[in-house]
Amino acid sequence: MFQSFEVTSRPGDGPPRLTALRAAMAAAGLDGFLVPRADAHQGEYVAPRDQRLAWLTGFTGSAGFAAVLADAAGVFVDGRYKVQVRAQVDGAHFTPVDWPGTRLAGWLTEHLPEGGRVGFDPWLHSVEEITRQGKALKAAGIELVAHENLVDAIWPGQPPAPAGPIRVHPLALAGQDHEAKRRALGAELAVQGARAAVLTLPDSIAWLLNIRGSDTPRNPVPHAFAILHDSGMLDLYCAREKLSVEVLTHLGNEVSCHPPEAFEPALEALRGAVRIDPASAPVRVAERLAGAEILHDRDPCLLPKARKNAAEIAGMEAAHLRDAAAMCRFLCWLDQAAPGGGLSEIDVVKRLEEERRREEGLLDISFETIAGTGPNGAIVHYRVSEESNRRVTPGELLLVDSGAQYADGTTDITRTIATGPVGALERVCFTRVLQGMIALSTIRWPKGLSGRDLDPLARAPLWRAGLDYDHGTGHGVGACLSVHEGPQRISRISEIPLEPGMVLSNEPGYYREGAFGIRIENLIHVIPAPALPEADPREMLAFATLTWVPIDRRLIAVEMLGRDERDWLDRYHAECRRRVAPHLDGATARWLESATAPL
Amino acid sequence: MFQSFEVTSRPGDGPPRLTALRAAMAAAGLDGFLVPRADAHQGEYVAPRDQRLAWLTGFTGSAGFAAVLADAAGVFVDGRYKVQVRAQVDGAHFTPVDWPGTRLAGWLTEHLPEGGRVGFDPWLHSVEEITRQGKALKAAGIELVAHENLVDAIWPGQPPAPAGPIRVHPLALAGQDHEAKRRALGAELAVQGARAAVLTLPDSIAWLLNIRGSDTPRNPVPHAFAILHDSGMLDLYCAREKLSVEVLTHLGNEVSCHPPEAFEPALEALRGAVRIDPASAPVRVAERLAGAEILHDRDPCLLPKARKNAAEIAGMEAAHLRDAAAMCRFLCWLDQAAPGGGLSEIDVVKRLEEERRREEGLLDISFETIAGTGPNGAIVHYRVSEESNRRVTPGELLLVDSGAQYADGTTDITRTIATGPVGALERVCFTRVLQGMIALSTIRWPKGLSGRDLDPLARAPLWRAGLDYDHGTGHGVGACLSVHEGPQRISRISEIPLEPGMVLSNEPGYYREGAFGIRIENLIHVIPAPALPEADPREMLAFATLTWVPIDRRLIAVEMLGRDERDWLDRYHAECRRRVAPHLDGATARWLESATAPL
Repeated sequence: MFQSFEVTSRPGDGPPRLTALRAAMAAAGLDGFLVPRADAHQGEYVAPRDQRLAWLTGFTGSAGFAAVLADAAGVFVDGRYKVQVRAQVDGAHFTPVDWPGTRLAGWLTEHLPEGGRVGFDPWLHSVEEITRQGKALKAAGIELVAHENLVDAIWPGQPPAPAGPIRVHPLALAGQDHEAKRRALGAELAVQGARAAVLTLPDSIAWLLNIRGSDTPRNPVPHAFAILHDSGMLDLYCAREKLSVEVLTHLGNEVSCHPPEAFEPALEALRGAVRIDPASAPVRVAERLAGAEILHDRDPCLLPKARKNAAEIAGMEAAHLRDAAAMCRFLCWLDQAAPGGGLSEIDVVKRLEEERRREEGLLDISFETIAGTGPNGAIVHYRVSEESNRRVTPGELLLVDSGAQYADGTTDITRTIATGPVGALERVCFTRVLQGMIALSTIRWPKGLSGRDLDPLARAPLWRAGLDYDHGTGHGVGACLSVHEGPQRISRISEIPLEPGMVLSNEPGYYREGAFGIRIENLIHVIPAPALPEADPREMLAFATLTWVPIDRRLIAVEMLGRDERDWLDRYHAECRRRVAPHLDGATARWLESATAPL
Repeated sequence: MFQSFEVTSRPGDGPPRLTALRAAMAAAGLDGFLVPRADAHQGEYVAPRDQRLAWLTGFTGSAGFAAVLADAAGVFVDGRYKVQVRAQVDGAHFTPVDWPGTRLAGWLTEHLPEGGRVGFDPWLHSVEEITRQGKALKAAGIELVAHENLVDAIWPGQPPAPAGPIRVHPLALAGQDHEAKRRALGAELAVQGARAAVLTLPDSIAWLLNIRGSDTPRNPVPHAFAILHDSGMLDLYCAREKLSVEVLTHLGNEVSCHPPEAFEPALEALRGAVRIDPASAPVRVAERLAGAEILHDRDPCLLPKARKNAAEIAGMEAAHLRDAAAMCRFLCWLDQAAPGGGLSEIDVVKRLEEERRREEGLLDISFETIAGTGPNGAIVHYRVSEESNRRVTPGELLLVDSGAQYADGTTDITRTIATGPVGALERVCFTRVLQGMIALSTIRWPKGLSGRDLDPLARAPLWRAGLDYDHGTGHGVGACLSVHEGPQRISRISEIPLEPGMVLSNEPGYYREGAFGIRIENLIHVIPAPALPEADPREMLAFATLTWVPIDRRLIAVEMLGRDERDWLDRYHAECRRRVAPHLDGATARWLESATAPL
C-alpha cells in the first residue's frame, strides 16, 4: 500500500525540540530561525530528512513554515490546514498563524525589535522568496541572515539524504534523446549570451536527461543538481550510488557525473553570464556564483518539458487507458458495495489503489487519494486518516480525486459519485460543474491566449447561479513526472500562453461547506484546432481528452443541459466504451455499458 | 445635419506645405518633426486648429501621425485606414506606413543617422509616449527635442482655438455637487501626500465641475486645464469668453478661473508633490513642474467618473428610452423602404439622424454613424462618404452603429438588419454573435474581476466555430460625456476591476472580409448581482441593460439557441415593448409589436 492513514504527529515531541533550537539560535547570535517545509529542490514532496517542520512542530501538512523566535514560535499554514494544525501542535508552545492573511514580514516586524536578525538555511529558500522578504523587512530594520541549518544541528538521528536509484526513461517514451535536448537548450543559452544555466529542479533534470528517480514518494524524480553549458555539455551532481552502469552508459560522454559536494566548488568556478531561475534556485546557488554574472530567467527546461511531444502524449494516452480500466473496476465495485452503507473512506482509498496495482507499469500513486464523503467532500485538500475516516453513507456525495504514476505516464482524475438517491441541489450543482467542464473540453481559441483567458468559461455556469470555487480550474501535469507541473495553468493568475502538447487538468468543482463537495476532473492536452468548415483563416488551438472514465449520469439534471452539452457527454461516454471495454472483465464491461448509456 | 459625407481631403495641397515644413525644420536645426492627430487634451475629436495632420498630408482619418524628415515623410496609420490613406495623400511625397506593424522608433532609426534630432510639440504628446519613444530611440542615438509647433508656424489662416460656451450640467443629472467631488478628491490627494493634481482631460474637468462644453464635435466637453489642490480648491484655466455669469456663479468661490496663458506660470509656481497622469498629461506640463516633485498616478477623476451614481444612471436610462424610440421609428422606416432597393448608405444615415433630432434634449450625435451594407459592413470603422456610398441591396446585411449625445446621457447602439432574405452562413454567424452578446448580458461574476476576465465569454460561441473578431468586446461610456471613456473596458488588455455604476458597451461582432459584417451592441451597466436562492455568500456583480431596441429576429437561427438564450431574447423583446411602445406613434408601435414577437 502506497498510501497510509496513520496519524503520525506527536505534539508532545515539539516543546523540547523547540527549546533545543532556541539554545542553538542563541549560541549562533540569531534572534530567530525560519523552518520551511521545503528541500533544496522546492519539491512538493520532501524526503524524511527534509521533514524539519513536522519534526520540530508536529504539523504534517504539505505546505507551511515556522518562524521561531526566543519568545514566540509561529506556525504559518493556509486555510485548508487551519483545523489540522491545532490538533497537531502543542498550543502552549506554538502559535498557529493564518497565512497568507498574516505575512511573515508583518509577523516578524510585530514580534522583533529593530536590528533583529533572523536566520535561514540558504538551501531551502529561493532567491525570489528571500529577496521579497528582505525588501518587506527592510523598513523594520530586520535582517535575514543565511546560516547553517539549526534544525539539522539539533536533530539526532536525522535521516540521511535519500539515495534512490535512477533509471533510464526509454527513448520510445521520451521521444527525443537527451543529446538533442541538451544541444537545443545549449544553443538557446548561447543566443542569450549565457555561458551556462544552473538546474535545481529534479523534474527539469529528469526530463532533460531522460532519467527518472526515486528519492521522494509520488514524484519519480532524482534529487540532483546540474550545470548545463552553452555547448550542450552537462555536469550532473548527485550521489554516485544512485547511478548504475546502465544509467552512466545512457548519460554518455557529454554528461559528467560528480558527487554532490562538487556542486558548490563548480558554481564558484563559473565565469561569464550564468542563468538561474530566481523562482526556484536556492539562495545558496546565487551566493556561490560570486565569480559569474547572474542572469535571472526561467529554468530553460520548463517550457520544452511542458510541450509534450508525440511520444510523450502516446505514453500518457496508454497510461490513461490502463488507469481508466482500474477506475472502471473501482467504480463498478463501488456501485455494488456503497449502497449497503458498510464502507468507509479508507476502504474506498484501499480498493482504488488495489485496482491500480493490477495495471501494468504502476510505479506509485501520483498523490494521496482524496476520498471525501458528505461534508468531507467540501474540504478541498482532504486526506483521510484513521481519525477523520467517515462512513460512506448512502445518499451522500462521494468525491474521489486520485492518480497514478505509470512508467509511461502520469494520471489525475476526479469523479463525484452518487452512493444513493441525492437531493435536487446536489444534482443542480453537479450539472453546473459538468457544464463548466464540458465548456473547457470543447472550446477552441485563437493562439496566444493563456489559461487565465479560458478559466472564466469553466466558471460561468456556476457564476450564473451565484456559485464559484476557490481553486484554479487546471494545473499542468508531467509525463511520468510531477502531477503538478508548471508553468502552464488554467487559473486567474496564469499568463503563460497555451501551446500544443501542454497537458492540463480540467477540474471545476463546487463545495458546500458542511454539506457536500463536487469536482469533475479529466486531463486534457492542447492541440492545433481541427479544421472546421467556414472557419476564419486564423490559427486556433483546442483541447483533446486523455481521461476516459464515465461521469455519474445519476447526478445529472439532464433538462439543464443544452443539446451540444448532451451530445458531448453521450459522445464522451461512447468513446469510454469503445476505448476501455476491451480491457475489462465481463462484469465490469456490463457495468460500463450501463454507466455510459446515452442520456 | 451633424454628419457630413464630403470628401474634404485635397491631396494636392500637401506637397507645398511639406516643403514649407521642411524649410522650417532646417531653420530650427531639426532633422525631423512629428505631426500627430492630437490636441493638448488627447481628445478623440479635435478642433479644426488641431487638424494639423489633415492639413499637412490630406489624411483625414481619426487616428494616425506623420514623421517628416528632410527626405522622407511617413504617414503612420493602422489597418482600418490602409486604403483611405492611399486615396488621400500624394504618394509621390508621402509614404503610408503600416502602424503598429512598423513602429515610429524603428522607422526613424532606419531613416536617420546617429545624432539625428527630431522635434515634437510638447503640448501634443503625453509624458508616457515620449518616455517610451525616447527609450526606444536611445540605442540609435536619435534624440527627441521639444520645440514650438512648426506646422502652426507655417499654417497661414490656422483656425483659432475653439471658444465654445460652457454650460452648467444640472445637479439633478450629475447627482453630486462639484464641491463634494472636489473635497473628496482633494482628501484623496492629501492622504497620498500630494499637494495638487494637474487635470488635462476635458471630460475629467467637465465631470468634476458639473459643466459641459462645446469645443469639439461629438464630445460635449470644454477645452480647459485645471489644478486641483489637496484642499479641494481648484484653479481652472480656459478662455474667459466660454464662461457665462451663470457658469461662474455655479463654479462659486472655491473655483478660480484664469485665462489659458496663466496655466504655465501656475505650474511653475507649484511646490511639493504634484500628481499628473503620464498617460494623458502633455510633456509640457511635466516640463513646467520643475519646482515640484512629480507623482505619476492615474487622473484622480477617472474612476469616480466611471462609477456612475444613481442620478447619472437615471439620466442614461431616460436618454436611452428616447433614443430607442428614434431607433424604432428608423428601423420601422427601414423595413418599409429597404426591400425596394432604392436606398443608399447615406440615406440611411440621414434618416437615422432625422429621427434622433425629433427627440428632446438632443445635443449631437455621439460619433459618425457607421452604416455599412454588404462588404462595407465588414470594415469595422467604416464611415460612408459620397465616394464610398453603396446601395442598400436587398439580401445584404446592413450594419448600423450609431449614438447620440442628449442632455441627460450618451447612447451607442449597433443593430445588424436583414434587408431581404439572407443566406444560412449569415444567420449562423449572427446567431453566434447574439449568443456572445447574451452571455455577457446575463453573466454574474465574483467582485474583483476585470473586463479581460469576461471578454472570452462573449467570444466563446464564435470560437467554437473557428471565428473571432479583432476588436474589444466593450468600451466604457460617459454620461453626457465621451462615448469612449476609460478606464473600464471589456477586452483582452483590460485589467481594471469592474465596479457598480460603470457603463460599458457589449458589442461582439463578426466580419467576413468582402462579404458581410455583423455587430450587435447594447449599453450595459454594472450592478450588485440580484439575490438568488441557494447562492454562495460571496459578493457578486452583474450587468443591467440600458438599450431597448429590437434585435432582428429574421437573422436568428432559432434552433441554435439554448432555452435560456431564447428566454432571454423573448424577455428582452417584451421589455422593449413595455418600455418603448408608449412613446411611439401607432404605425411604429405596430412594427415594434411584430419585431418583438416571441421567437
